[in-house]
Amino acid sequence: MADEKNEGVLARLGEELKAKSSSLKAKVVELLRKTKKLAKDDPRRIVHSFKVGLAITLVSLFYYFEPLYDGLGASAMWAVLTVVVVFEFSVGATLGRGLNRVLATSLAASLGFGAHFLADLAGDKAQPVILSLSVFIFAAITTFIRFFPRIKARYDYGFLIFILTFCLVSVSGYRDDEILQVAYRRALTILLGTFIAILICLFICPVWAGDDLHSLVSNNIQLLANFLQGFGIQYSNELKEDELLEGCKSVLTSRQTEESLVNFARWEPRHGPFKFRHPWKQYQKIGSLTRQCAYRLESLNNYLVTETQTPLHIRDRLMKSCSKMSIESSNALEDIASDLRTMTQPTFPNPHIEKSKAAMKDLKAALKIGPGDGDIDLLEIVPIATVASLLIDTISCIEKIAESVGELGSLANFKCVEAGKSSDLELEQEHQKLPTSAIVNDHCHVVIVD
Amino acid sequence: MADEKNEGVLARLGEELKAKSSSLKAKVVELLRKTKKLAKDDPRRIVHSFKVGLAITLVSLFYYFEPLYDGLGASAMWAVLTVVVVFEFSVGATLGRGLNRVLATSLAASLGFGAHFLADLAGDKAQPVILSLSVFIFAAITTFIRFFPRIKARYDYGFLIFILTFCLVSVSGYRDDEILQVAYRRALTILLGTFIAILICLFICPVWAGDDLHSLVSNNIQLLANFLQGFGIQYSNELKEDELLEGCKSVLTSRQTEESLVNFARWEPRHGPFKFRHPWKQYQKIGSLTRQCAYRLESLNNYLVTETQTPLHIRDRLMKSCSKMSIESSNALEDIASDLRTMTQPTFPNPHIEKSKAAMKDLKAALKIGPGDGDIDLLEIVPIATVASLLIDTISCIEKIAESVGELGSLANFKCVEAGKSSDLELEQEHQKLPTSAIVNDHCHVVIVD
Repeated sequence: MADEKNEGVLARLGEELKAKSSSLKAKVVELLRKTKKLAKDDPRRIVHSFKVGLAITLVSLFYYFEPLYDGLGASAMWAVLTVVVVFEFSVGATLGRGLNRVLATSLAASLGFGAHFLADLAGDKAQPVILSLSVFIFAAITTFIRFFPRIKARYDYGFLIFILTFCLVSVSGYRDDEILQVAYRRALTILLGTFIAILICLFICPVWAGDDLHSLVSNNIQLLANFLQGFGIQYSNELKEDELLEGCKSVLTSRQTEESLVNFARWEPRHGPFKFRHPWKQYQKIGSLTRQCAYRLESLNNYLVTETQTPLHIRDRLMKSCSKMSIESSNALEDIASDLRTMTQPTFPNPHIEKSKAAMKDLKAALKIGPGDGDIDLLEIVPIATVASLLIDTISCIEKIAESVGELGSLANFKCVEAGKSSDLELEQEHQKLPTSAIVNDHCHVVIVD
Repeated sequence: MADEKNEGVLARLGEELKAKSSSLKAKVVELLRKTKKLAKDDPRRIVHSFKVGLAITLVSLFYYFEPLYDGLGASAMWAVLTVVVVFEFSVGATLGRGLNRVLATSLAASLGFGAHFLADLAGDKAQPVILSLSVFIFAAITTFIRFFPRIKARYDYGFLIFILTFCLVSVSGYRDDEILQVAYRRALTILLGTFIAILICLFICPVWAGDDLHSLVSNNIQLLANFLQGFGIQYSNELKEDELLEGCKSVLTSRQTEESLVNFARWEPRHGPFKFRHPWKQYQKIGSLTRQCAYRLESLNNYLVTETQTPLHIRDRLMKSCSKMSIESSNALEDIASDLRTMTQPTFPNPHIEKSKAAMKDLKAALKIGPGDGDIDLLEIVPIATVASLLIDTISCIEKIAESVGELGSLANFKCVEAGKSSDLELEQEHQKLPTSAIVNDHCHVVIVD
């Protein structure tokens, strides 16, 4: 009897252990799956990790080689620190951080040295007071300056480093007699670390923020084209795809990433098809118009769900034109996206926009109802009538997008249609693979609550 | 003749100088105006600047007092560095950064010490190889881990500091025989710096991310109430206020700030009316429903512009109900916002929601048109009909907001209506002053292109 009980307990324990180990196994498998997905979504992440490892290892070599170490001494540590902090995913972000760091360090080191010099003149007793006061004033003012939105956007890191270095140099001068040496070594090692970080970031499989911005904006237009295509077909075939709506929604969340990328891209030198002073800000304009269009498409989706209430005889009359309009709009957007991707000046007027306008005229004619249509509940017509009016809105939105891409084209000297598209096909193919969500995740350092 | 010419030149030079100095003056005045506005929008910014100055000055005292300096030596610099880097605007952000820094440093220091120990065993020649290899592997893996969205959200800074400290400790062990001393001092000074930063952040006019989240979310609901109020009056009085639309749009851009604030608030201890483990995530749910409502209100605004096309006899019939619906919806939203602000459990069902539902029924009846209405162009009715349908949508949205505030109330034990509202009136008044844009600017470390 007792044995049986024991056996039962043992068996239960065994089962529990099995359950726990299998749940652990499931978790490990899940983690591996997620890791694989993260690497597959954007393989540049793996390359980036190796690049960071390489840069840090290179910098740490200063410690191992006698002659290098003798020149720098323990300050070599600042070089390691710099590489870790400065190395970002894209060239633009790394350059921005690096330049901020180097300039702020140099400026703060000289000012800190000045403060130390002044305090020195004042005598031994007054020295700590003057130093503390100058640290307090500089720290408070710099902290306040960081609240200015424009400064926050491009120079936040620089101002942080400015406070840091100023305090370090002016304060450590109180103890260290070789303050000039300290300031000089700190500036030199930071320059060295920044140099190595930028070098590796720039020459080993560089990730250009400008490239990513370019493909993000054109991808987003393509996503809207896909949605409208699906919407047009759906209106005759009743098939529904959540994926298309997801695409449309991801367009709406990419604003912040676009802003970051514009800021990063402005630090980058010319590369590939992008000249120095490429009009990056224009991409933001296109992006904002794209989002305006995406809002309309999202509302379209709402009315699809309630469409069944519409009286059939009216619905049939409108459906054909609606479907035609959305498919032509989709083609127009696809044209724009592909022109942007291949950097070709778009043709004016776009033939698909003209066709969708013609369909719009048919639709407007079909929207007139007479007494022959019998009693009508307006609320029942609202869905289909709203779809019609949203589609009409969408067309004017698409026209604006086409215009702003045209503006970009003339600002950035896009090639004209006569020139072949072959040379940029490679660029096009490479970038089509990256989904919007991957680009957002790569560049946005914003906190995301799962 | 020549004299006259000279005089002319001098006069022109003088004018140019005047023009330049006056344009410089204008620029300085503009800068002062902006600075004043920045300080006036949120006076906590000035307090924060002073707090940072104070904390840094306090930490730098370690250099001036003999006994303190003797214990720490040049490592005291790490304390200064820590304060500069850890001190953030809100308590939650500072705590999060501080804990990340302290934990990551301790973990990395012990691992770095372990790596150094292993390398030591391997002999003099193999030592640099093993050290370099371990630095490379750890740096690469940690960099990759930072791409996981969940980790990025809360522990990005910790992982950065982990790489940093691991490299510093393991590598400097090659030269410095007192590696244990180095690791210990670094950990101690970082702990000290973090402690001072948290202390000052917590006890001198603390800025709670939770408070700001609470007022941001309730402010946003209030902004929608204001918009609907204006919309309802406008429909009978034709007055138009851009300010209301601006408010509505600022709701749409506050998503990222809400996410940051939730992340920060989760680090915060109990304070004021907020208990430990206050359901912060629920605020995000309310916020996202608020934004869904804001989208609808933004669309409403579009239809107001085109309303003149609607045939008068139909418009008059609908206007009264529409106006009533929007004013009642506005009252309902105002109730919800004030319940949230004062942390009172909202009443179910909300009387204003019921009233707006009654108005909705009138509207639905008014929307039926018969043959007596003559020829009708549907496109002309679309605006007013869409306004009606958007308002109906808005009501269901408001119901959802009320529900989620109710959920928050039961999760966080909001007081019931019977209890007085006096105790929290202070909280309410204090927070009503801060506009959404100020809160967004204070907490969002995101790059903004002007």
